[in-house]
Amino acid sequence: MYTKEQLFHFTESVFQKCGMPAADAALAADVLLSADMRGIDSHGVARLSGYVRLYEAGRANMVAHHKVIHETPSTATIDADRGLGLVVAPKAMDIAIKKAKQVGTGWVAIQNSNHFGIAAYHAMKALPHDMIGFAMTNASPLVAPTHSKERMLGTNPICMAVPTGENRPFVLDMATSGAANGKLEIAQRSGKSLPNGWVQTKEGEASNNADELKNGGSLLPLGGHKGYGLASMVDILSAILSGANYGPWVPPFVAFLNPLENLPGNGIGHFLGAMRIDAFRPASDFKEHMDLWINRFKDSVRTNPEVPVLIPGEPEFDLYAEREVKGIPLNEVVEKDLQSLAEKLGLSL
Amino acid sequence: MYTKEQLFHFTESVFQKCGMPAADAALAADVLLSADMRGIDSHGVARLSGYVRLYEAGRANMVAHHKVIHETPSTATIDADRGLGLVVAPKAMDIAIKKAKQVGTGWVAIQNSNHFGIAAYHAMKALPHDMIGFAMTNASPLVAPTHSKERMLGTNPICMAVPTGENRPFVLDMATSGAANGKLEIAQRSGKSLPNGWVQTKEGEASNNADELKNGGSLLPLGGHKGYGLASMVDILSAILSGANYGPWVPPFVAFLNPLENLPGNGIGHFLGAMRIDAFRPASDFKEHMDLWINRFKDSVRTNPEVPVLIPGEPEFDLYAEREVKGIPLNEVVEKDLQSLAEKLGLSL
Repeated sequence: MYTKEQLFHFTESVFQKCGMPAADAALAADVLLSADMRGIDSHGVARLSGYVRLYEAGRANMVAHHKVIHETPSTATIDADRGLGLVVAPKAMDIAIKKAKQVGTGWVAIQNSNHFGIAAYHAMKALPHDMIGFAMTNASPLVAPTHSKERMLGTNPICMAVPTGENRPFVLDMATSGAANGKLEIAQRSGKSLPNGWVQTKEGEASNNADELKNGGSLLPLGGHKGYGLASMVDILSAILSGANYGPWVPPFVAFLNPLENLPGNGIGHFLGAMRIDAFRPASDFKEHMDLWINRFKDSVRTNPEVPVLIPGEPEFDLYAEREVKGIPLNEVVEKDLQSLAEKLGLSL
Repeated sequence: MYTKEQLFHFTESVFQKCGMPAADAALAADVLLSADMRGIDSHGVARLSGYVRLYEAGRANMVAHHKVIHETPSTATIDADRGLGLVVAPKAMDIAIKKAKQVGTGWVAIQNSNHFGIAAYHAMKALPHDMIGFAMTNASPLVAPTHSKERMLGTNPICMAVPTGENRPFVLDMATSGAANGKLEIAQRSGKSLPNGWVQTKEGEASNNADELKNGGSLLPLGGHKGYGLASMVDILSAILSGANYGPWVPPFVAFLNPLENLPGNGIGHFLGAMRIDAFRPASDFKEHMDLWINRFKDSVRTNPEVPVLIPGEPEFDLYAEREVKGIPLNEVVEKDLQSLAEKLGLSL
């Protein structure tokens, strides 16, 4: 078990050792740790050495200065200067929030970026401002379109964070694939077979093998062709609108795979938004109705009296609270990975 | 077979017989016919007598005057005056487009409305303006949240329409349930059993029975808990933001079921949006990349060489072109329904 503070300081130090300015390193560490705290273990410190390898391969700029390259009162397009999405996305969200304060809503498309961690971190920045936050990103191609066996789309998540009154916020943060890659990794480690609808073989046949991606297979879109449509929506908003790479051209997160040649855009892309509640109705009315919505859904008739109906975001808030007290458990593989990173950089975990 | 013009004029006349002003009747007919032309037969003239019954039951106002009750430069909230969504949604979309021209994006939440037909009609209004269009609506509760057996959400569709260059536009228009209700009706008529993941019994057990809704069962969310999250997102944006009813309180489309008592809002709700492409990058660049995106996806490696990879919206454009030539086929039940409507109102089909 590690405390949040331990892992935060370690992560911050690692980014600083890569030349990242102190304020940016603290921000990037905050984003990564928010994943570990919320129980999205695949997107937290487990990815730290991956970011370092991208830097070592010359693919991530640790001293990036993002630029607004296009804007209107309610929109902006940002060039992330090949920096980490971990750093530029929160800053871009601040721009969206500022525009929402001025004209009701703010929308920011980002090109030339790298992975931004969990979408929820960015969308949830809207909450203290009584705004609804949105965050999407495209990602390394792993998902095949319906009727295809080729990896053409990332797990392209959609996140919406909604302010509430007495209840905890509504935070939907979901991959548009049947399962996020992290869930496959968990199944691989435990040696379990997968549910139907998660993966197919490289020939496009249904499979329950957790190692199918290693064999050249692909992830399947959520619920069939609709998930393909949703992942495409995220790809278009994140990358075609911003000028990033899209579809099969999205540069892989893993540094041992090189990006394709003749890329149509720059880096990977994100799309963020903030909508001021009181641009539509008084925030107090809205939050009262959100509470009623949540309470009514929690009270809906259960299929099994022992299994509660959950509100999107609840499991993550529960884990956050638990990990604040008990600490963050790291699995053995991740712990070893961080230890060798510490050794290489002259740090201690 | 009927021509588009025949059914258009009939539909227009029916709405006029209900007291609707001529311009509104033409608009409502245009929205309904667009569904029949695009092959979304469940949402076209098949629903015409349903709208008339809502009018007869005093639940739909045919002489509605919508009002903007709240606005900012990029947003508006509209009270639809208990009118048909068929009429107010296109007008609200015009407001979204106007705001997008002025400040980059426009977003309109609508309360006190009735069903708006197919989402694609409204979102596609953005296309000639080189804008991306969005349309969502909540609907009569038929879908159970994960771990519940109670009908709490509608099939709550999400639609995004995206301009392209040489290709036909990208138009995603999807229910957030495993299947839209229309697909169940088709299965009922043909006596076929349903695929897994569409419905559950009133006890919350998996079922493949096309009549399960009649037995008190419920529809299942797309791909499990993620579809529940997406349907909730649509419910919140369409209704909690606008002041409409939400969750189990959404008034049923069928006039023989009364709305619940002590409703928390007014009518049903919609959420529409328009984003100007050149608020992010030059529209010509964007459309060139959309063409490349579409061409690359159509060329992705097929699982079965005989089965093409489709782009969202393609089947509907194909059907539209086909029905312009061959006409619109009506199934027997719908044809009889329209004939008795004609008789009642002194019209001829």
